[in-house]
Amino acid sequence: MAQTTEVMMQGAFLLKPETIAIRELPQPRPAAGEVLIRVRAVGICGSDMHLYDTGRIGPVVLQDPHIPGHEMGGEIAGLGDGVSRLGVGQRVVLEPGLACGHCHMCRSGRYNLCGALKFLGVPPNHGCLTEYVVAPAQWVYPLPDALSFAAGAAVEPLVVGLQAVAQGGVGPESRVAIFGAGMIGLVTLEAALARGAAHIWVVDVVERRLGLAKELGATAVNARHEDVVQELRRQTGGGPDVVIEATGAPAAITAAFKSAARGATLVAVGFLEEPTVALDYTAIVRSGVRIETLFRYANQFPLALDVAVRRRERLAKFVTDSFPFAQTAEAFAVAHGRREGTIKVMVEFP
Amino acid sequence: MAQTTEVMMQGAFLLKPETIAIRELPQPRPAAGEVLIRVRAVGICGSDMHLYDTGRIGPVVLQDPHIPGHEMGGEIAGLGDGVSRLGVGQRVVLEPGLACGHCHMCRSGRYNLCGALKFLGVPPNHGCLTEYVVAPAQWVYPLPDALSFAAGAAVEPLVVGLQAVAQGGVGPESRVAIFGAGMIGLVTLEAALARGAAHIWVVDVVERRLGLAKELGATAVNARHEDVVQELRRQTGGGPDVVIEATGAPAAITAAFKSAARGATLVAVGFLEEPTVALDYTAIVRSGVRIETLFRYANQFPLALDVAVRRRERLAKFVTDSFPFAQTAEAFAVAHGRREGTIKVMVEFP
Amino acid sequence: MAQTTEVMMQGAFLLKPETIAIRELPQPRPAAGEVLIRVRAVGICGSDMHLYDTGRIGPVVLQDPHIPGHEMGGEIAGLGDGVSRLGVGQRVVLEPGLACGHCHMCRSGRYNLCGALKFLGVPPNHGCLTEYVVAPAQWVYPLPDALSFAAGAAVEPLVVGLQAVAQGGVGPESRVAIFGAGMIGLVTLEAALARGAAHIWVVDVVERRLGLAKELGATAVNARHEDVVQELRRQTGGGPDVVIEATGAPAAITAAFKSAARGATLVAVGFLEEPTVALDYTAIVRSGVRIETLFRYANQFPLALDVAVRRRERLAKFVTDSFPFAQTAEAFAVAHGRREGTIKVMVEFP
Amino acid sequence: MAQTTEVMMQGAFLLKPETIAIRELPQPRPAAGEVLIRVRAVGICGSDMHLYDTGRIGPVVLQDPHIPGHEMGGEIAGLGDGVSRLGVGQRVVLEPGLACGHCHMCRSGRYNLCGALKFLGVPPNHGCLTEYVVAPAQWVYPLPDALSFAAGAAVEPLVVGLQAVAQGGVGPESRVAIFGAGMIGLVTLEAALARGAAHIWVVDVVERRLGLAKELGATAVNARHEDVVQELRRQTGGGPDVVIEATGAPAAITAAFKSAARGATLVAVGFLEEPTVALDYTAIVRSGVRIETLFRYANQFPLALDVAVRRRERLAKFVTDSFPFAQTAEAFAVAHGRREGTIKVMVEFP
Repeated sequence: MAQTTEVMMQGAFLLKPETIAIRELPQPRPAAGEVLIRVRAVGICGSDMHLYDTGRIGPVVLQDPHIPGHEMGGEIAGLGDGVSRLGVGQRVVLEPGLACGHCHMCRSGRYNLCGALKFLGVPPNHGCLTEYVVAPAQWVYPLPDALSFAAGAAVEPLVVGLQAVAQGGVGPESRVAIFGAGMIGLVTLEAALARGAAHIWVVDVVERRLGLAKELGATAVNARHEDVVQELRRQTGGGPDVVIEATGAPAAITAAFKSAARGATLVAVGFLEEPTVALDYTAIVRSGVRIETLFRYANQFPLALDVAVRRRERLAKFVTDSFPFAQTAEAFAVAHGRREGTIKVMVEFP
Repeated sequence: MAQTTEVMMQGAFLLKPETIAIRELPQPRPAAGEVLIRVRAVGICGSDMHLYDTGRIGPVVLQDPHIPGHEMGGEIAGLGDGVSRLGVGQRVVLEPGLACGHCHMCRSGRYNLCGALKFLGVPPNHGCLTEYVVAPAQWVYPLPDALSFAAGAAVEPLVVGLQAVAQGGVGPESRVAIFGAGMIGLVTLEAALARGAAHIWVVDVVERRLGLAKELGATAVNARHEDVVQELRRQTGGGPDVVIEATGAPAAITAAFKSAARGATLVAVGFLEEPTVALDYTAIVRSGVRIETLFRYANQFPLALDVAVRRRERLAKFVTDSFPFAQTAEAFAVAHGRREGTIKVMVEFP
Repeated sequence: MAQTTEVMMQGAFLLKPETIAIRELPQPRPAAGEVLIRVRAVGICGSDMHLYDTGRIGPVVLQDPHIPGHEMGGEIAGLGDGVSRLGVGQRVVLEPGLACGHCHMCRSGRYNLCGALKFLGVPPNHGCLTEYVVAPAQWVYPLPDALSFAAGAAVEPLVVGLQAVAQGGVGPESRVAIFGAGMIGLVTLEAALARGAAHIWVVDVVERRLGLAKELGATAVNARHEDVVQELRRQTGGGPDVVIEATGAPAAITAAFKSAARGATLVAVGFLEEPTVALDYTAIVRSGVRIETLFRYANQFPLALDVAVRRRERLAKFVTDSFPFAQTAEAFAVAHGRREGTIKVMVEFP
Repeated sequence: MAQTTEVMMQGAFLLKPETIAIRELPQPRPAAGEVLIRVRAVGICGSDMHLYDTGRIGPVVLQDPHIPGHEMGGEIAGLGDGVSRLGVGQRVVLEPGLACGHCHMCRSGRYNLCGALKFLGVPPNHGCLTEYVVAPAQWVYPLPDALSFAAGAAVEPLVVGLQAVAQGGVGPESRVAIFGAGMIGLVTLEAALARGAAHIWVVDVVERRLGLAKELGATAVNARHEDVVQELRRQTGGGPDVVIEATGAPAAITAAFKSAARGATLVAVGFLEEPTVALDYTAIVRSGVRIETLFRYANQFPLALDVAVRRRERLAKFVTDSFPFAQTAEAFAVAHGRREGTIKVMVEFP
């Protein structure tokens, strides 16, 4: 029958590590309470790259061809039954972690820890590198006019930065050290500034990234040329009181703990690539630090959209590379190459 | 002149690892704002034993003959100028961490992290295993009549337990796992009960200690015979949401992290004896746990004295061994031996 | 068609103030995600009585015949599509505030403040004084075997008490004053004890209620015979540091503020019957108190069920009167009469 | 003997309401731990004006000739024994609330609530409108070079603003309404901006003050011409989630409560001049608001000095009038007159 004829669309599938191919798949239809979104821009994230590089991300293993991508901007192309808050043609972004809304974690405001959460772009849930996606209307937010679709796709990493500084309790009185000047480090810098922090140090080994951090108002510390622990201790007068570790590199993790002031808060964001890291546990206990670990985020999208508008010229600098959807494979290859100048690679739909 | 003749008293000196000797030293005099306390009971603590066993505690090294002991009960024997809140003959306990009261940490309620804090019994500050000590009056609390001097000396470890459960946010809704059923584990159990916790698991390898934990209301898990992580996960329905690590043993630290529920709080109390421990950092980050580290305590003595009265029959069970001051060397030897039945060794003055 | 024949059931309707009549209405059917509950016990609450007495509750006005009742215990009689967590015949209680689960308040853990929340028993939403109700499965909790249906119905007021002590930050160190020894005051007393509070004062004017409070472990203050402010200040040594106002009476509100210690937390639970109350605002500001206001509750039902089991003999004392459903009008008349001995009136189904 | 000859100095005494006279008094000498400060600038505060206008402030009554003034900048003129952190000639500001440092409130980080606190400038403690004052060194902070003495004297009101926004939990996500565009309202605006707030409304009736608030980035609401509650509700989309009441005027207090969003935080800063205010208590309870009351401040001076440097051009606008010390009476008269253009009146020493 006519109504059952499937409309097809294109999606970018990760077939195996380092292999992306564009293939056809049926265009989804929004169920009751859902919307259909025409995807317009998708950012490639570090977690997408983990999957691309290794076929794994945390405990998840790539088995079937998988569509990655969870940072997106698009426009509403269809409404499921009962959706009235959004309209066709409206420009939107999507919060990609679809929490259940009912469990203890959801009810107590920590829906990022929901045991039933489906995260789009992490197997077995396809992501957004496809022409259309469907999602429950409650996880879809209007995209302000001042933001392009690419800027909308870059809101999701900013959400991570805002979650990190919120867990760190960053405020105008904080001396903040951020380890890593990649996308997450830089959005964390912007997020810390948005919370009023005025004394921020950024640690990395890539001079070009540090230059950008400096331009944005941070003090740069190059771990290749400086004794990070000693410099942070000296420059902050005893150690930063908030430390955000956004690299996952063992040397950075070690230096992050060593540099923290007594009683500081350390926010662990980056994932370690090795199985374990050896930590001076007694020194950590004796330092009186509080360690926050960041697993996804909750309640940050509305704020992030507001901050993204206010700081849009600054945030736009982080989107360094853009490819049309047809060249998604090239986009991944560039992200894989980790060129010094590359921060965020964006895939855009015509 | 007569008034400068020094009155001598006896003190128990740690001369070198495993060597205690009683020697004479001048009896101190209280300065303005201080009191002179006649010591009546002193508990031997794990940190005293570190120093006794190894000549070190954290970064501190035993160099000169040193008087250990920071858990004490006694009575006021003299008042310095300006002290009116206390009177000679009054039974008291002493909070042994003498914070400065002026620095940022002191002013913001975290005086345990005061950089100028002097902790009695940690070199270079002599402790309480001596006939008389002086201390600023503001760190001295009246000892309720219902408590013996030995019970007063045991208030300090209870303070540690109360600090641990406070940092853990323990309440009636908590499922609490405590690793270790030594003195600190057991007072933490009592402290958790005092905060209304009703579901508590205690993990150890010594059956006799676990028996006591069970008698006090906990569920016992013997790490020698059971798969701790699996048992805790199963019995708590997904993992405890507060985990208190009070052993410092690498296997326990590892199991503590592995058993914690998603989003749990882990309180690190025990010090590791090895230089480092290898941790599955990514799994920790992904679990969304918050890690609190406990370095001393703040604002818990008044509560501890109240709890010590209410729970005195239970707490009295933890003082398993007692020696007169003249046999302090034997007391340390017994504590060193870690007999299965020994929990707290007390030194009492006639 | 046969399947559309409506099955009828009985419900107790409030027709106008002080007028209850039992009438027939169609038995509801559970939609997808809902359950049908056969009601077995319903408690009559102060807010039901407001409506019964005055035809109003806050801004809500009784217009059409209305079924009151939101404290209930029952058993599952039918399952809507997709419900698997519960089974027919299972004994349950119902959380009567059905929050949307999607809005900012719901997502951030404060679902009691959800703007779209439907509260069963408050017009225009019928309540539970009827043979069957339907409700979304996620707001239905298994009732432990140790609790009768009436004890299950009494869990909801306990939830209010737990919310009050949670907002008050009650713990073992607190000196708590509770104004009012009616049902809410008494469950708040139990809730404070459950959080470890050991020093609790209860203020009322009815000696019989104060006697019960005393029997449960509180110190009683009779406002008819004693100067409440002076007594609380004297007995607590400077004023309680948590004050819970559960009467709504102007004299109690005034005394609650006056007795609070500097920097205390005051939890406002009771509703005032008059339009306004005159408060000494400057004295309040200068006292440095924090004032929490309690509008419904969030995340307390699972804890309340656990506490209800542990403290069931004590809580059972609060159910002082019971009527069969056919005598619901009499039950309301008794609750209206406010006999000295009446605390909670229960309606039970055969 | 020569050394006991008293050196005399001048001070501005409030003799009775509206009567200031300059008289001689002995220059104080710093005791151990204290410093002697040569006063260079003193701001006249609302609480000084209360005393000047009425001879009272809260429960305190003017009895003897009294030196007001607690907002000050000066330079060190002498050191008591044991003071090494500060040096003669150093430019400084003084935190005027001298807390005891020992009591429960001091130890738990809430030293503003210290029962033994001496507040300089509130009878019976003389204030700073005199050539020299002594103060304990721990309450004296270096004044950054970028700030004039008058700017240093204006740090104290900024501290009040920072305390208000801290208690209100203001952050970048907040929609903040500030009632009052006098000195406290304006420094609160700056403090909210310093914490990252981007959506701030300021309510007043004086157009000139509202103009300044607008210039500084707020949205102005003129309570003389607009329906404040309706406008705030409409413009914020449901009400501000932080409301700071800095007027003490009954109409503003009422509007502040009515406009607050459900679950908002209201910070009560202003003191009411009347004995009581009639509040719609039930509406307040049902709104789920949290009410913070601000009595002095704690732990804000270091942050305030930092913020004062960063925002110095903006803050300088608030010092609208300046008089030499010899004309202190005129300075008070001008402050008393409440000219539309007057915000902060400063007294400066040659």
